[in-house]
Amino acid sequence: MINFEYCNKTKIIFGKGTENQVGKETAQYAKRILLHHSGGSAVRSGLMDRVKASLKEAGVEWVELTGVLPNPRLSLVKEGINIARNEKLEMILAVGGGSAIDSAKAIAVGAVNDGDIWDFFERKKTADKALPVAAVLTIPAAGSESSISSVITNEEGPWKRGINFQCIRPVFSILNPELTYTLPPYQTACGITDMMAHIMERYFTKEPNVELTDELCEGALRTIIRNARKIFSGATNNYDARAEIMWAGAIAHNGILDTGRIGDWASHALDHELSALFDLAHGAGLAIIFPAWMKYNIKEDNASAARFARFAAKVWGVDGAFYDKEQAALEGVSRMEHFFKSIGMPVRFADANINPERIPEMAKRVVHFGTVGNFRKLEERDAVAIYKMASN
Amino acid sequence: MINFEYCNKTKIIFGKGTENQVGKETAQYAKRILLHHSGGSAVRSGLMDRVKASLKEAGVEWVELTGVLPNPRLSLVKEGINIARNEKLEMILAVGGGSAIDSAKAIAVGAVNDGDIWDFFERKKTADKALPVAAVLTIPAAGSESSISSVITNEEGPWKRGINFQCIRPVFSILNPELTYTLPPYQTACGITDMMAHIMERYFTKEPNVELTDELCEGALRTIIRNARKIFSGATNNYDARAEIMWAGAIAHNGILDTGRIGDWASHALDHELSALFDLAHGAGLAIIFPAWMKYNIKEDNASAARFARFAAKVWGVDGAFYDKEQAALEGVSRMEHFFKSIGMPVRFADANINPERIPEMAKRVVHFGTVGNFRKLEERDAVAIYKMASN
Repeated sequence: MINFEYCNKTKIIFGKGTENQVGKETAQYAKRILLHHSGGSAVRSGLMDRVKASLKEAGVEWVELTGVLPNPRLSLVKEGINIARNEKLEMILAVGGGSAIDSAKAIAVGAVNDGDIWDFFERKKTADKALPVAAVLTIPAAGSESSISSVITNEEGPWKRGINFQCIRPVFSILNPELTYTLPPYQTACGITDMMAHIMERYFTKEPNVELTDELCEGALRTIIRNARKIFSGATNNYDARAEIMWAGAIAHNGILDTGRIGDWASHALDHELSALFDLAHGAGLAIIFPAWMKYNIKEDNASAARFARFAAKVWGVDGAFYDKEQAALEGVSRMEHFFKSIGMPVRFADANINPERIPEMAKRVVHFGTVGNFRKLEERDAVAIYKMASN
Repeated sequence: MINFEYCNKTKIIFGKGTENQVGKETAQYAKRILLHHSGGSAVRSGLMDRVKASLKEAGVEWVELTGVLPNPRLSLVKEGINIARNEKLEMILAVGGGSAIDSAKAIAVGAVNDGDIWDFFERKKTADKALPVAAVLTIPAAGSESSISSVITNEEGPWKRGINFQCIRPVFSILNPELTYTLPPYQTACGITDMMAHIMERYFTKEPNVELTDELCEGALRTIIRNARKIFSGATNNYDARAEIMWAGAIAHNGILDTGRIGDWASHALDHELSALFDLAHGAGLAIIFPAWMKYNIKEDNASAARFARFAAKVWGVDGAFYDKEQAALEGVSRMEHFFKSIGMPVRFADANINPERIPEMAKRVVHFGTVGNFRKLEERDAVAIYKMASN
């Protein structure tokens, strides 16, 4: 186990009807805020009316910025920064999924740091101050509700890049599982895949003695899989299944599952190019990338195969006694692919109309900052090989 | 799953040599502090020298208050409060185990709230402000390093009572597993039992749909048991085993394992009378109480038996297929008792020289504030029955 620091200050307010507490919580931080959302489903469902009523009752004024899209855009972030500065706003409140929250975080950085906001995403600058950010979460997926991450897409390129700053961790996040009943199945599935990927990125580490976090990761994955199966077997409005998924999505990315270890994160990098070039949902891209990344690594050496065999046994119920390690590991990947397909996710390029001719270009882009991944450091040729596996 | 709020602001600094960061971290909060410890092993081991050197280097001044004992005493708390007030100290830094930290928390409350500190423990008053508290942990056990709890013994009585206030959660805690190598086996075992009890108090809930936290609890318990066996099989100075135990002890009590559920806590109440009257270590008392409490509940109804059967299967590897629920549940308790004995814990009154003649007195004291427990609300007669089971 390696030395670590762990601190997560986000206050989670979880459960039925909790969106009605947003005004009271917000008023502890600000009197004038930017209210940031897509302008779509949260308006139609009546959620925005409840949020605004709660803010009004608490005496909080807001300026609204709508138009957040999946793979949130830099242009909207820049608009938000201008509004926040000109209107002297004190906080950014996102209502929506990871895209709205990530966009809010980027605005929060830009509002109090001079210069081009994209410089932070290009790793030219780092930030230690931002406006407070908070969220009413509607899509369990990105874990942005209590994380230090924000991923933004620069349309010129397009480039999809992330930042990780302590100062953008939300001060509070409101999680009401009832709000997720009306999510389209595809979005529910993308979210489930995304949170599983967050855990798997942490699970696949070369650090040998991290038993507690291994156990916690495996338990969280089993819980997600079991409850995903419930939801996709028709229990769309099952509160408890939705609640397990929603809370797991936050824990997947709140930092506790990487204590004492270094995660991998190559699959996220490989997907970023996929979802940037083809505007594919992040979760769908991960469902395509992860099986290929696993198969590529299982072949690497015996220690890797053992790690994947444990994953197969503990998460997918593969009985290791009847297989050699490599076979058990591959059987685990096969069961994972079957699961992803069962919830409507693509698992190959063709399933998502991705043109394999762009593999060389994507592989070049993925190593823009150098090798990616820690479980195994991937160079351009590894990226090509993994993309090819994902296209077959 | 019931609605909940979760927020834990303690910064955990974990790993080798981390005690040398104490000055830098402390200086962010205070320039003059109360340094609170037992004056025993931390001095002999050289830890206090390192702590003081670090404080000095960071320009932090301290007043020292030593003499903390297991089951920390109210009289010392009062002494600490007087010192903190007279010397205008700004923070309390505990070096030690749960006793030192609990004592520090009580001092932190008394330093800034007028009146008799014991009134808070008698539930006559509540506190929303305290001096900042921080810790360098030497005994993984109580979880006080990131909890909102403090348990103090009033020698007149004696009464052992607890408080739970957000304002006493440590601002930071330093956890170096190397510091635990020299713990006597009995203290290591008491700590292991205590942290297991913290998880079990949360695990035994009547809330039916809390799958994620069930999985996390079970994984943490398995990790503790496996690594305790390593340490008690001679791997006393195994860093990774000590690290798993130390981190599990913090997670056991940091609040994440009770999200969405109401824990029981009757066994803690039953032990408080035992350890107050017989000055028994808290962990040892819990090793005696928990098996009896379980056996008493398994008989209650089928739903209870099912919960204990799951515990037997997931934590103790009892194969439910070969048993009926009650049998499986009892087999789990039996394996737990065997485990406690294997690490040197008492599991019956006689093992710890506890006089069963005082059962009626203890049972009366345990319901001082009303029934105890939530999994099953225990009255005086239930307490008598459980104490009797623990004495046979």
